[in-house]
Amino acid sequence: MYIHNTQIRVRYGETDKMGYVYYGNYTEYYEVGRVEALRSVGLEYKSLEDKKGIMMPVIRLSVDYIRPAYYDDLLTIITKIVRLPDQEINFETEIFNEKNKLINKAKVDLCCVDMQTMKRVTTPPFIISVLKPYFG
Amino acid sequence: MYIHNTQIRVRYGETDKMGYVYYGNYTEYYEVGRVEALRSVGLEYKSLEDKKGIMMPVIRLSVDYIRPAYYDDLLTIITKIVRLPDQEINFETEIFNEKNKLINKAKVDLCCVDMQTMKRVTTPPFIISVLKPYFG
Amino acid sequence: MYIHNTQIRVRYGETDKMGYVYYGNYTEYYEVGRVEALRSVGLEYKSLEDKKGIMMPVIRLSVDYIRPAYYDDLLTIITKIVRLPDQEINFETEIFNEKNKLINKAKVDLCCVDMQTMKRVTTPPFIISVLKPYFG
Amino acid sequence: MYIHNTQIRVRYGETDKMGYVYYGNYTEYYEVGRVEALRSVGLEYKSLEDKKGIMMPVIRLSVDYIRPAYYDDLLTIITKIVRLPDQEINFETEIFNEKNKLINKAKVDLCCVDMQTMKRVTTPPFIISVLKPYFG
Repeated sequence: MYIHNTQIRVRYGETDKMGYVYYGNYTEYYEVGRVEALRSVGLEYKSLEDKKGIMMPVIRLSVDYIRPAYYDDLLTIITKIVRLPDQEINFETEIFNEKNKLINKAKVDLCCVDMQTMKRVTTPPFIISVLKPYFG
Repeated sequence: MYIHNTQIRVRYGETDKMGYVYYGNYTEYYEVGRVEALRSVGLEYKSLEDKKGIMMPVIRLSVDYIRPAYYDDLLTIITKIVRLPDQEINFETEIFNEKNKLINKAKVDLCCVDMQTMKRVTTPPFIISVLKPYFG
Repeated sequence: MYIHNTQIRVRYGETDKMGYVYYGNYTEYYEVGRVEALRSVGLEYKSLEDKKGIMMPVIRLSVDYIRPAYYDDLLTIITKIVRLPDQEINFETEIFNEKNKLINKAKVDLCCVDMQTMKRVTTPPFIISVLKPYFG
Repeated sequence: MYIHNTQIRVRYGETDKMGYVYYGNYTEYYEVGRVEALRSVGLEYKSLEDKKGIMMPVIRLSVDYIRPAYYDDLLTIITKIVRLPDQEINFETEIFNEKNKLINKAKVDLCCVDMQTMKRVTTPPFIISVLKPYFG
């Protein structure tokens, strides 16, 4: 398993009239978590698209909204790659607030798409080999 | 069960550099589907907040991204209230594109919160009684 | 001058903790206004990109926020093309609420970019000729 | 004049199908710039609302889009408070990309609203006195 932490401060525009972060805006937090987790092992998602012609759309998402997040909260995003990617890449995210309370849990599953053919492909070997040391 | 249909046209700002609707932006489509489903049985969500002091935050979400949605697509949002609300209100949404292909399926579970006490409450009787005729 | 009206209902996710529509989210309303104005004269913006290889990025924006817009408001978006396009295409938008009060005024200026060369070009003749009848 | 710098990395969800940051999403960057500029002089915007009952809606915005911003760009946001606040608070923002090219310029004018009465008020003295040392 690979675990990575990053922090995000809630922006005003991410809240809604309830005063909470809008339920859809957490998806950007998961995305930042994923991208920074990949960057920390040397995989730049931007380069995957630009240089390798691989993009990774989301195919499945599940979220538990446990406590609200509020404007200006400094959130800790814990991103886990829970298994060695194969047909899919599976991320799990936990978000904690400044009082260290778990406020949100999510699973995000992505696949790889070849941007030439726009067909789904298995995770490319260069991604597997970068992640392999963290699994077993 | 209560079923309601509404339509949404994909906005430019809802797409991302992949050319698809960003995975987080579907949440606004589910929300429009929910709100219009409630309006169609005479429940105006805005009035729930303003006049009844009840708000309905999302507590759980799960999504299957089946096919991409593209800019300017006219999407059909089918929103189902699958059981009579009790501790939660459970919505299921299916989204179809103009070729009538299923592109997205989601479950969104909400609870009721008393805006005075900010405590979770069971679904108020006036909501139950409006929906009851559709269930059995 | 060409004038076109369309309507938009404010979504929950477009509000912020102030209870108003977030100041940045009006940009999607202007965009819908522009796209529907163009569609109403037979110009589909999507086709401009897909078939003509022309995209229209925004180069300048100015906004007066006169009154707030609230959740669930049904807004009327009045979009004007104020002069025959040349180096730029200039839109002016006025937004009215259900009480017919002017709440927002904006000017949005766009240019045309050739998607092959990614260079700025003057407005293509086929756009000019569609709009010409409304000017002069 | 007071000048403050902060940095933002462009998120995937902030881009659109053009591959650029959507023109409306810069508003969140200006907002982060403003909030961090105020924090750096000891004014926490969140506390203004929560403790002082003052909120600051945007009343006017103007933007020049000079060059596009792209996914994953690390942008430098330079925020200036250009005059001592009085009836309004006037911010000017310049955004630079990693090559130190100016990509975006904006002016954002805000006013103060008393959250009890929901009436516009002049900028409170405690804000003026914090900012005064930087002007004259």
